Amino acid sequence: MEFPSKILENAVKSISTLPGIGKKTALRLALHLIYDQNGKAELLSQSLIDLKSKINFCSSCHTISDEYLCHICTSQSRNKKVICVVESVRDLLAIEDTGQFSGMYHVLGGVISPLDGIGPEELNIDSLISRIQLGYVEELIMALSPTIEGDTTIFYITRKLNQPDLRISTIARGVSFGGDLEYADEITLGRSILSRVPYAGND
Amino acid sequence: MEFPSKILENAVKSISTLPGIGKKTALRLALHLIYDQNGKAELLSQSLIDLKSKINFCSSCHTISDEYLCHICTSQSRNKKVICVVESVRDLLAIEDTGQFSGMYHVLGGVISPLDGIGPEELNIDSLISRIQLGYVEELIMALSPTIEGDTTIFYITRKLNQPDLRISTIARGVSFGGDLEYADEITLGRSILSRVPYAGND
Repeated sequence: MEFPSKILENAVKSISTLPGIGKKTALRLALHLIYDQNGKAELLSQSLIDLKSKINFCSSCHTISDEYLCHICTSQSRNKKVICVVESVRDLLAIEDTGQFSGMYHVLGGVISPLDGIGPEELNIDSLISRIQLGYVEELIMALSPTIEGDTTIFYITRKLNQPDLRISTIARGVSFGGDLEYADEITLGRSILSRVPYAGND
Repeated sequence: MEFPSKILENAVKSISTLPGIGKKTALRLALHLIYDQNGKAELLSQSLIDLKSKINFCSSCHTISDEYLCHICTSQSRNKKVICVVESVRDLLAIEDTGQFSGMYHVLGGVISPLDGIGPEELNIDSLISRIQLGYVEELIMALSPTIEGDTTIFYITRKLNQPDLRISTIARGVSFGGDLEYADEITLGRSILSRVPYAGND
């Protein structure tokens, strides 16, 4: 596509570097902003600058936070004996949205993946070990991807901790609730049969 | 969703004001920008500011342009006797992409729509009439929406021009090439039968 303006072309290029946004969508967004009368572009531009310059990370769990410690780490009502280990802030927010977990978190920032050049030192593993060495934590819930990289990361952390008293669990995986068996992928279905749970209906 | 940071929340709010982008996508984009190391957020922010502060509109056809006149209006190789009237810059770019039109354009900036408070004076109609009164133009192609508003706009322009020598045409509408009849909407199919064209295969 030939653009009538270099400025428009630059904007479309920048917008289409965002994940999931192609050239056509970028052009639509750019034209929307050009003709917008409510100062959207200025607001958006300022909030993007703030995003990079003002945002902090919690010094304990490494989630995004405006303060030195995040509101989860400073909360008095949360169970400090359980830490849920996640890859990213998105995963943390997804678990928070369920309302089913009232413990603490630890954001690793990824999983060990030698092919992508991500070793243990690129992740927030040392700070996790320091947190556990304080002695308050009784359980670690590993909510990582069920991939070789995720499993490797769990294995590495467990070996490095070397604390037999610490309970380490992973989140349950299987066919999703409400999911039809015929549409479940083979690995999920196969594993959910191998790791079947006793029927609790007779209790 | 409860956000761990006010700055993140503001960014998500600004991003989700864009058309077609919801809260979840906005969060994904904001987190992507936070963890990006290539200065994407700064580039994007600057290009949005440029978009609002530096962009110009061609003083003849009203498309987006960096100069006083756009590259189409100043081109020597285009047919200045035909003007294609479009609603928006997006429509202009879509027609340009086909490579089938080598005339001039005129961007109205919308169509007459009293319900939305858009009267003829909100649109670039006067400047279109001035262009035609110069006497060079022989044909006007109306590439507007086939709606009551679009038809009203064509009617208004035609009456206001009052030039019997000027040819006025609309783009052909009908079942799209490669489109199955059974999936065409009723209005399109109905109108395409009423405005059937003679079979040219015997020529």
